[in-house]
Amino acid sequence: MPERIYNFSAGPSTLPEEVLAQAAKDIVNFNNKGMGLIEMSHRSKDFIAVADECEANLRELMKIPANYKVLFLQGGASTQFAMIPMNLLGEGKSATYLNTGVWAKKAIKEAKLFGKVQVAYTSEESTFNHVPKDSDYTVDPASEYLYFVTNNTIYGTQFPAMPKCEKMLIADMSSDILSREFDITPFGIVYAGAQKNMGPAGVTVVIIREDLLDRSPENLPTMFKYKTHADNGSMFNTPPCFSIYVVGLVLKWLKKLGGVAAMEKINKEKAALLYNAIDSSDFYRGHAQPGSRSNMNITFNLPTPELEAQFIKEAAALGMDGLKGHRSVGGCRASIYNAFPKAGVEALVAFMKEFEKKNS
Amino acid sequence: MPERIYNFSAGPSTLPEEVLAQAAKDIVNFNNKGMGLIEMSHRSKDFIAVADECEANLRELMKIPANYKVLFLQGGASTQFAMIPMNLLGEGKSATYLNTGVWAKKAIKEAKLFGKVQVAYTSEESTFNHVPKDSDYTVDPASEYLYFVTNNTIYGTQFPAMPKCEKMLIADMSSDILSREFDITPFGIVYAGAQKNMGPAGVTVVIIREDLLDRSPENLPTMFKYKTHADNGSMFNTPPCFSIYVVGLVLKWLKKLGGVAAMEKINKEKAALLYNAIDSSDFYRGHAQPGSRSNMNITFNLPTPELEAQFIKEAAALGMDGLKGHRSVGGCRASIYNAFPKAGVEALVAFMKEFEKKNS
Repeated sequence: MPERIYNFSAGPSTLPEEVLAQAAKDIVNFNNKGMGLIEMSHRSKDFIAVADECEANLRELMKIPANYKVLFLQGGASTQFAMIPMNLLGEGKSATYLNTGVWAKKAIKEAKLFGKVQVAYTSEESTFNHVPKDSDYTVDPASEYLYFVTNNTIYGTQFPAMPKCEKMLIADMSSDILSREFDITPFGIVYAGAQKNMGPAGVTVVIIREDLLDRSPENLPTMFKYKTHADNGSMFNTPPCFSIYVVGLVLKWLKKLGGVAAMEKINKEKAALLYNAIDSSDFYRGHAQPGSRSNMNITFNLPTPELEAQFIKEAAALGMDGLKGHRSVGGCRASIYNAFPKAGVEALVAFMKEFEKKNS
Repeated sequence: MPERIYNFSAGPSTLPEEVLAQAAKDIVNFNNKGMGLIEMSHRSKDFIAVADECEANLRELMKIPANYKVLFLQGGASTQFAMIPMNLLGEGKSATYLNTGVWAKKAIKEAKLFGKVQVAYTSEESTFNHVPKDSDYTVDPASEYLYFVTNNTIYGTQFPAMPKCEKMLIADMSSDILSREFDITPFGIVYAGAQKNMGPAGVTVVIIREDLLDRSPENLPTMFKYKTHADNGSMFNTPPCFSIYVVGLVLKWLKKLGGVAAMEKINKEKAALLYNAIDSSDFYRGHAQPGSRSNMNITFNLPTPELEAQFIKEAAALGMDGLKGHRSVGGCRASIYNAFPKAGVEALVAFMKEFEKKNS
């Protein structure tokens, strides 16, 4: 096995090598303090500087206005599925959801515990192979918000543009945050688990418009109120220090690379290489409809499940790991988040051509 | 500053050097897989082996019977303050709590949202300088459980033995788990944030008796039901992989050292060194009453706040960091969890003698 392979895992996923190298040093002795990063009090000056710099860089990279709070929480996106309606719905309130995959569906399930839910669109009957256009659905005027998942990891679909809607938007951007530019001002909440585009598992970034903090019901447990975390700079209790620290390193790497606009350009190039390989062949068949294709997760099938298994096995032997599709849809999936190198995409495309030649 | 200092931080806190060295390697390339530990899918064989071994070692070290589930959750002890009553209380149900400090008080606050709470004992009027004896309180026979905090980090108190009680016990052991042997069978739930005695921040271990899993109200959000995590081996969603991995390393270190009984002996020796230093002097004054003294957090005062500040400053200059008491009580605190070396305690005792000589 080579020193470093191409890791197409959907998440946790590949990180920049320089980030790993820095983390390896800091874990033993941070800032030459004589203790490791994970041994430091979260209330120490050094760690507070880590967290502050991380937030400042995220604000800069995503152009987050001052009237939004940036929170570093635990529990993953799955906890947000519940926290959002717990904080924003309640007796007599309703919200609109777009059902574009497993993660949207799970969010819908939790929202129903706390309010009326209108599912304005679903692509379930076509195995979630597309996302809707704005004209494909209407949003109930009584809704508090329109909830959607910007990128659907499992199916390889992505909203090519954010929905336009009278209502406040809320988005799960776990699998494409920081991969493309967008205007955050129509959003009430944008959130993302870190383990795809931002860092390791263990921290969820929640960006929330300040005026929403006071909408929570009084009797909500302290930890499930956004306000608790907003009022305490995400340090109401011990935060997931290491994960926040690594996110900070990834953000510095991204800034050095030119920020989100530069990254978006690279992401488009990487994805185009793979979609071109798929489109120029009858052997490979893309799962997502062209207008809904994701630049993060490229899903495709081969003529038979047997060939898919062989493809995945041979690729792994060549140092291309994690190409197996999600267990719920099968096939192949190449997850090529921000930190995935273009050379790895080129290697995969070359292998695809060779595999087709040998097996078609 | 020396290569490695003595870190008396109350949490996150010092970890074994060999654990840090191993983590530094694995973070770049785990098991020679060509990818780092934090880049691996949580559903990969390699990571599942990490999680399984971690659980098996915890079961062995704590002698956890088969009818208990071990969960690796997120959100810290603070989230457990709410999850426990959410799962076990509800309309018409009640529980008994012992108020021995800030963390117990916070747990009481959350429990009141979900049921009737009897506070059977409080040591608040004496700045929580002791914990009760069994004979100091009675537990309401209607209670579902008796809740207490085994070790109170801020005040330096610790239950010398677990309460004896007809009711099922529930304990927050965040600051003394794995530091001493005890029989878990009278407990319904034992839980602990990892960042004091077990590893880095970001994971909370919850040990729960299996029959409790079916008591949760139906309409609880999925992520807040213990059963969700128990049924999915703590992988209902992406777990905090890195934190679990480091806990696993710490458990292996503890096993090699002889397990909990061996550790308990060392902990008693370390604490005795400090308490002897305090008791043999009129300059230092222990905060905790002798019968309630913690072997994990040793809290003490000097004749004046000015001397305390000077003591903390001079100690830090000598490579003894983190001796400042919690902001809510002031004074000094030496946190000497499992991984804190005896040599560091000896260094502190020597410094205390010298400081007293110069300043009394």
